[in-house]
Amino acid sequence: MSADRKAIIFLGDGMGDRPVPSLGGRTVIEATDTPALDAVAAGGDCGMLYPAGPGRPVGSDTAHMAILGYDPFELYRGRGPFEAKGVGIDVRPGDLAFRCNFSTVEGGVVTDRRAGRIKTGTDQLAKAVNDGLSDGIDGVQVIFQESVEHRAALVLRGEGLDHRIGEVDPHKEGVEYWECVPLPEAAADATAVRTARIVNEFVRRAYEILQAHPVNAQRKQEGLPPANAALPRGVGTAVELPSLRDQYHLHGAMIVEVDLVRGLGMYLDMDVIEVAGATGGADTNEYAIARAVEAAWADHDFILANIKAPDLGGHDSDPVAKMASVAKVDRAVGYLLDHLDWSRTTMMIGADHCTPVVVGDHTGDAIPVAFYGYGTRPDDVTTYGERACSRGSLGHLVGADVMSLLTNYTGTQHKFGA
Amino acid sequence: MSADRKAIIFLGDGMGDRPVPSLGGRTVIEATDTPALDAVAAGGDCGMLYPAGPGRPVGSDTAHMAILGYDPFELYRGRGPFEAKGVGIDVRPGDLAFRCNFSTVEGGVVTDRRAGRIKTGTDQLAKAVNDGLSDGIDGVQVIFQESVEHRAALVLRGEGLDHRIGEVDPHKEGVEYWECVPLPEAAADATAVRTARIVNEFVRRAYEILQAHPVNAQRKQEGLPPANAALPRGVGTAVELPSLRDQYHLHGAMIVEVDLVRGLGMYLDMDVIEVAGATGGADTNEYAIARAVEAAWADHDFILANIKAPDLGGHDSDPVAKMASVAKVDRAVGYLLDHLDWSRTTMMIGADHCTPVVVGDHTGDAIPVAFYGYGTRPDDVTTYGERACSRGSLGHLVGADVMSLLTNYTGTQHKFGA
Repeated sequence: MSADRKAIIFLGDGMGDRPVPSLGGRTVIEATDTPALDAVAAGGDCGMLYPAGPGRPVGSDTAHMAILGYDPFELYRGRGPFEAKGVGIDVRPGDLAFRCNFSTVEGGVVTDRRAGRIKTGTDQLAKAVNDGLSDGIDGVQVIFQESVEHRAALVLRGEGLDHRIGEVDPHKEGVEYWECVPLPEAAADATAVRTARIVNEFVRRAYEILQAHPVNAQRKQEGLPPANAALPRGVGTAVELPSLRDQYHLHGAMIVEVDLVRGLGMYLDMDVIEVAGATGGADTNEYAIARAVEAAWADHDFILANIKAPDLGGHDSDPVAKMASVAKVDRAVGYLLDHLDWSRTTMMIGADHCTPVVVGDHTGDAIPVAFYGYGTRPDDVTTYGERACSRGSLGHLVGADVMSLLTNYTGTQHKFGA
Repeated sequence: MSADRKAIIFLGDGMGDRPVPSLGGRTVIEATDTPALDAVAAGGDCGMLYPAGPGRPVGSDTAHMAILGYDPFELYRGRGPFEAKGVGIDVRPGDLAFRCNFSTVEGGVVTDRRAGRIKTGTDQLAKAVNDGLSDGIDGVQVIFQESVEHRAALVLRGEGLDHRIGEVDPHKEGVEYWECVPLPEAAADATAVRTARIVNEFVRRAYEILQAHPVNAQRKQEGLPPANAALPRGVGTAVELPSLRDQYHLHGAMIVEVDLVRGLGMYLDMDVIEVAGATGGADTNEYAIARAVEAAWADHDFILANIKAPDLGGHDSDPVAKMASVAKVDRAVGYLLDHLDWSRTTMMIGADHCTPVVVGDHTGDAIPVAFYGYGTRPDDVTTYGERACSRGSLGHLVGADVMSLLTNYTGTQHKFGA
């Protein structure tokens, strides 16, 4: 055990890829000039990571859970609790939580899912919803909380709530929003039927309150779409997760650009650090992120950092944009190589999942990873990439291995046995 | 099924390592001239072994359990039962067992943890303790048994005993021995409180008996520290483990130099073979060990052998001493290559864990292994070592794979299915 050794996980979101024809069959990482990532691979030991097992495509939430050693197959019950935690609701085990959008609805049809990306007044709207529903619905407490722009979260707290229900937000515009119904497998289940009824009642009454609210009267006057509906989605039951400190005896920080993952960090009682200049877009300031990691390194045992941009290029099927974003990750890692004390730091570089540009979505392909710094055993791999790291000495890892290997290298894991 | 095929696991204790700066970044194995280990790697198939999973540091007991296919996460409840079995107590499932030292205590302070490494008379001392406590303590039977020098073991047998209690032996001298107390998580648990009280009562009454014993009166007269206390540590609850024969239908022998592992072998009903010249130290006679394996090979289906010395060099952070010990392992393996019938023998060489000289303690790093002899499929690896074996055809194994692969090669494992 040594408290002065530090561990870092540095991820390029969705950075892993498949061969891209326009790049001569190379992956985006292979085609990008990445001197820092290559130095990490050359100086450390490499392998391939399947966060949730071979060929399992994962979301940002489940991937980060898996990489932090929280088995998503056992512990994941939907994104809602992380969203709700991320917007500041004190989520408790047993709560049913949802992501919500403030949307514009006319005659039941969603005309704008984001209510014109409403900038101000959502605090008053949320307060009106909470006040109007302060007596709860059918004995269930309602907690509604606005976030940035059109984003919000909803928590239902009470006995007998069931997560086996469908969405309300139809995920597109020009169609009616959906009535919440039990999932097919729970159609005959009284708790799921009642939960769906409570959600529908929330949507109906929130609409009444929002439609009549002065903020929306003002918006209509200004020709802006009113935020007259709150449409839940991404339901999840809040489960008890041990904090990162309880799990690993580490004081951890999270520096990420995705609300959902930030919510996971808060859920795990990590210090979630906001970085000015970290936009979550292709224009993000990678040096600001790297400097934030450097600063957090001084007073934390563990840091998880993630630059979102590569994932966007993957979803947009834009290899050139994704290459530029991978180069940003490389520059951030290069900054850390220059500025941290590697005689007492171990870092894993990698990704949470692959988002191949030829697919435009997450896949369950293996992610190249490299462990660098204190304790590692350098292998023969000299560049960072999908093909190169598959020849690394670590072989194929799953999410649960990552924290185990990192804390083994740093020496902060207890020996099991005598 | 063929009864005349044999399997061997030959381990250099703690032999795996990390790069050592003074060895030019090579590991101890890589830096040592090991013609026999290299011949095994060249003639067999290689891989990397994580006994308890990637990055999990393990003790000698848990590592050997894992390698023998007994899942320590499920079956390990502390070292005590193996220690007690090792000194000859007929440990039964449910027993609470401890390693004990005969120590010298003055006014509650431990002045010599090993009572001057007392050589004779401990049989009389142990008999006196057993006789004095023949009525048990609070309905619990007390079984106390001496071993070599200051070593002893204690078994408490009865209803409602709890292993969630702390140590009595303070693990250093010049301080008072510890009162046994429930672990924090069991502080409010009546069974743990009662168990701790019974242990304290054992310590108190054993002191009365030992302090008044003629053997100690004689020792004081001779200016020797009296063995007037019996201090328990390493508590464990005895669980039911299937014998090696029941588990694998193999008649097994164990040739090892560590009491704790020897106790595991007895627990598994293996033939635990004593070897004259096997000192457990850097001066051990590796040829005596190899000849003992050769002799056991004649009338056993399976042998586990372990040379302790490399682990000592690791704990002492002495790369030169560890290299000399790895060379001993190499010579023992070389003897076996020359003297066994490899047309009907399969051997795995490896280690129970890594004890890197740069760490001085066990780590959870992968261990290089090579399977040699009957049934194996030689790969391209030509030398034995951490980097070389990571390129082997077997990939990364865990403890549970070892006996499965060995009995697959020897053909002594039943087909599963039709």
